[in-house]
Amino acid sequence: MTVHSSRPFRAVFQSFEDLADGAAGPARLAALRNALAARGLDGYVVPRADAHQNEYVSPGEERLAWLTGFTGSAGLLIVLKDKAALFVDGRYTLQAPAQVDTQAFTVVPLAELRPEAWLEAHLPKGTRLGFDAWRTTLDGRVRLARATERAGGLFIAAPDDPMDEIWSDRPEAPCAPVRLLEPALAGEETVSKLRRVRGEMKSAGLDGLLLSDPHCTAWLFNLRGGDVAHTPLPLAWCIVPLEGRVQLFLSPAKLPHDVRAVLEVFADILPEEALREHLSAFAKGRKMRVDQATAPVCLADCISCAGGTVDKGEDLITRLKAVKNPSEIAGMRASHLRDGVALVRFMAWFDHEAPEGRLTEIDVVEALETFRRDSGCLTDVSFPTIAGAGENGAVVHYRVTKATNRTVHPHELFLLDSGGQYPDGTTDVTRTFAVGTPSEEMRAHYTLVLKGHLALTAAVFPRGITGAQLDPLARQYLWTRGLDYAHGTGHGVGAGLSVHEGPARISPMGHVPLAAGMILSNEPGYYRTGAYGIRIENLVLVTPLEVQGAEQPCLGFETLTLAPYDRRLIDLSLLGPAERGAVDAYHQQVREAVWPYVDADERAWLEQATAPL
Amino acid sequence: MTVHSSRPFRAVFQSFEDLADGAAGPARLAALRNALAARGLDGYVVPRADAHQNEYVSPGEERLAWLTGFTGSAGLLIVLKDKAALFVDGRYTLQAPAQVDTQAFTVVPLAELRPEAWLEAHLPKGTRLGFDAWRTTLDGRVRLARATERAGGLFIAAPDDPMDEIWSDRPEAPCAPVRLLEPALAGEETVSKLRRVRGEMKSAGLDGLLLSDPHCTAWLFNLRGGDVAHTPLPLAWCIVPLEGRVQLFLSPAKLPHDVRAVLEVFADILPEEALREHLSAFAKGRKMRVDQATAPVCLADCISCAGGTVDKGEDLITRLKAVKNPSEIAGMRASHLRDGVALVRFMAWFDHEAPEGRLTEIDVVEALETFRRDSGCLTDVSFPTIAGAGENGAVVHYRVTKATNRTVHPHELFLLDSGGQYPDGTTDVTRTFAVGTPSEEMRAHYTLVLKGHLALTAAVFPRGITGAQLDPLARQYLWTRGLDYAHGTGHGVGAGLSVHEGPARISPMGHVPLAAGMILSNEPGYYRTGAYGIRIENLVLVTPLEVQGAEQPCLGFETLTLAPYDRRLIDLSLLGPAERGAVDAYHQQVREAVWPYVDADERAWLEQATAPL
Repeated sequence: MTVHSSRPFRAVFQSFEDLADGAAGPARLAALRNALAARGLDGYVVPRADAHQNEYVSPGEERLAWLTGFTGSAGLLIVLKDKAALFVDGRYTLQAPAQVDTQAFTVVPLAELRPEAWLEAHLPKGTRLGFDAWRTTLDGRVRLARATERAGGLFIAAPDDPMDEIWSDRPEAPCAPVRLLEPALAGEETVSKLRRVRGEMKSAGLDGLLLSDPHCTAWLFNLRGGDVAHTPLPLAWCIVPLEGRVQLFLSPAKLPHDVRAVLEVFADILPEEALREHLSAFAKGRKMRVDQATAPVCLADCISCAGGTVDKGEDLITRLKAVKNPSEIAGMRASHLRDGVALVRFMAWFDHEAPEGRLTEIDVVEALETFRRDSGCLTDVSFPTIAGAGENGAVVHYRVTKATNRTVHPHELFLLDSGGQYPDGTTDVTRTFAVGTPSEEMRAHYTLVLKGHLALTAAVFPRGITGAQLDPLARQYLWTRGLDYAHGTGHGVGAGLSVHEGPARISPMGHVPLAAGMILSNEPGYYRTGAYGIRIENLVLVTPLEVQGAEQPCLGFETLTLAPYDRRLIDLSLLGPAERGAVDAYHQQVREAVWPYVDADERAWLEQATAPL
Repeated sequence: MTVHSSRPFRAVFQSFEDLADGAAGPARLAALRNALAARGLDGYVVPRADAHQNEYVSPGEERLAWLTGFTGSAGLLIVLKDKAALFVDGRYTLQAPAQVDTQAFTVVPLAELRPEAWLEAHLPKGTRLGFDAWRTTLDGRVRLARATERAGGLFIAAPDDPMDEIWSDRPEAPCAPVRLLEPALAGEETVSKLRRVRGEMKSAGLDGLLLSDPHCTAWLFNLRGGDVAHTPLPLAWCIVPLEGRVQLFLSPAKLPHDVRAVLEVFADILPEEALREHLSAFAKGRKMRVDQATAPVCLADCISCAGGTVDKGEDLITRLKAVKNPSEIAGMRASHLRDGVALVRFMAWFDHEAPEGRLTEIDVVEALETFRRDSGCLTDVSFPTIAGAGENGAVVHYRVTKATNRTVHPHELFLLDSGGQYPDGTTDVTRTFAVGTPSEEMRAHYTLVLKGHLALTAAVFPRGITGAQLDPLARQYLWTRGLDYAHGTGHGVGAGLSVHEGPARISPMGHVPLAAGMILSNEPGYYRTGAYGIRIENLVLVTPLEVQGAEQPCLGFETLTLAPYDRRLIDLSLLGPAERGAVDAYHQQVREAVWPYVDADERAWLEQATAPL
């Protein structure tokens, strides 16, 4: 196995640089204040968002990072004449103050003070507070407008983007070529999807949809692209009328001729700049569904001003997209087999190398990405790998940089949460490994997490049950020890799209009933601050089950992920016979699936890693 | 045991009459329409509510029943010039059409059409729709006002109660004498409670509270009364200022001199009629918490008009009241012992009599109430007993009347949900009994319900966990068979107050974290429509637990109810060893507690009913 450790591992889809440039913050802030004054504004709200509320945004949309130096994936800056407050959630309360100039920017943990309360406390009466109407949602506007007005200020859409004036070396908007998903992978043609969408529109009494979430447009037209990191997503807007031709707004430069020809069967292809004009023309007298999660207020206002009715709600496509068709499921299975092979090869290598105490977190990320690329068809990682040794594992959204990189020491736990994008699917898997001999406490905690993970895997439930109702099954064993984890148990996963998608999730907030064909993660965890983190994550497919005497069709979960749990971390005295059987059966499944694709050394590792408990 | 069956059983706290007088409905409706016309109104909304949104209302507040003949515990009537729609929930979709004149009133199931949607569909433009500002909450007004306005109408508070004009033989407002709870039962003096309430007011930045829920006033002053059925509640209003004397609005006729003297230490006693005047005088420039669940809009408006600020939210006392103090807990324990003795004596009698096939549901209710009255201190039942033989057991809120009364046949299940009010506590218990030999299916379903009930009883969880998170523990075994129940698993219970109280509950809607000292029901069920109903209910006390290694203080449940489960209905093949042990331990606890208080025949019954499984 030494052959593996000597090869050059590298990461091509993720970097370990800390891109923060906090030093420039004060000057940029001053420039922004000048630009605001020229526009008659006393303040401005800068969210970490693009116009589609995407999780990953293109470099030219990183307004918040450019302005402040803060590179977290969520945040909100409120700039006033003499104050600038950067609101960050619990993941970033340490990172943000380290990245920004705290003389210029006050970092405010959201758990302590919401922007609304801050505005009420700090906004001088009469303040004209500007906001970016392309990057603010309807709910977001209502929340901040109320607080601004309560403080005696005015909440005003800025006439243009002041960043255009002050950000000179701003990256261009992305323009990755758009391609069509092969019919065998898509599993349903646009004509059929469009028919279903229009059926839903009719039931909901809608004359039109504004698709502001590009994932929904990508699903409807079986399109893929590359405009944002880690997601094969073309940025686009779409107007779907109840009848007649769809209007697809997408930079023509992204569109090869053959793709354009296929799309033009259903849709008029228009440049993004033409969106507002066409939306105004379409909306008059029509009722349009506007996605509450992603639609910018300027587009909702455009509909209202044109005499249309804004029906704020969930994008109708979100629920359709969440239910995968047989081709998508087959693609997800194929991706998970490929991913499982990479994981098993990685784990064999890691088990060989790690105990020597020389591997760093970055080494591990590079190795894992390399094993995934060995599949020959990895198109990206589905998110930057979370590789946390020891106490770094307790940082739920840890991302290793050169500054934080740390050696993996023996007798530690190592948490590894990663995923791949393949042409036919998306993966997301977490394993926690023992390096050397784990403590009794580590084994007990791992086993409690595993018991919850297994209980959720084994759940059987009638149609209508929500993720919120299943979430406690994964927590119950931790609870009995007075422990819990401060994140949801599972999120929806796209099929060859985003690794996080709605509307269903397994969490106290998951109020959408699960449906056959949905794919979600099952990822309970436990985090001992300053010591170690444990998380065990598989993706599961919601599957119909035949149950005698049932009054409702029943559902259960089928596991897609193929990677052994760490047997050394399982405390057998805490497992019941059914749980033991479930682990053994899963390990047998992993072994049989992966066996044909790994070499002799790896098979030897696999054999012991999947031996019956 | 025959001595018991020959004695005269009777019910004094509940009746089996169907009080409906639907025949008079059309004439009364016509009279109402005339009264509305005289007030310049085209329509009127009649909720089933009193001014405090009480669950049980006094006879003179039964406007809806008087007008329509419908006697359900929830409903809403909208009267227009040529239409009258009675909205009822799933419990009453059969009962309502049987009680009302369906020529005059259209019964609308809420599941099919909400009043808001009905208004939008049926309200003629320009309609002046009146509402009763004393019996409508703030949220209720907003909902109906929006719908009325969307339909082009006006939603207008009626200048007075039109019922005053048309309801000639209307019962007087209740005027039961008010008494003080003995200090040993109350466990905390008003001075201390007031201090705690004011501490909460200070944290919430409030200058005053308007107590519209009389339970909160009763708790604050350790008062009890008898103005509504099944709850020892004096109807009253209260204004609690942050400093200075409380204003208690309560008919002086209810108040014995000695009680008045005690109250006047803290409070000015004022007649209810003086409430609005004093509220106006107090509210100016002050921020007052107004209970969103119970406060009438006319009082909220009174605060706003006087220049005060309405802070709509949860009554601050609700959470304090939900956490019982040691004296309240002792009283609840004593009540449950008394109740357990009555239940065991009843069950011995029932087991002897029922198999002969002559008992009716009413016989059972009368017997059970009599055994409870034998305690010598039953002050009321805590709600009308639900006694459902066979298919009647599947009607979740079944209440037997002379019209529906039915004989209990052998080989049926019998569901009995009942409770008592004692001077020191309130009980609520459900048991399901086999009469003769139950079927395999009945036993399997009973055992699945029991497993959920036991899982919830055994739950251990860290502070912060909500009822919504615990609810699935009680459903998980039913789910595996594709079964479920369409009600919450548990509600809060008052200590010698209402059998239903907030804010915590164990249900998908229960978003309040449980806290030590709360008392809730644990009552999963299963209902096979047309065949039988199963429910198993104990009251449980949330109790702190010492758990080694816990990161949060831990909580669990201690069962207060003392009554055997039906061993004949337990399918042992479905129970694990821990569950078996839990049933045996509970049965031993019941046997030891009740044993000293029952006679030899009853002991013989108890012995076999609580024998190890």
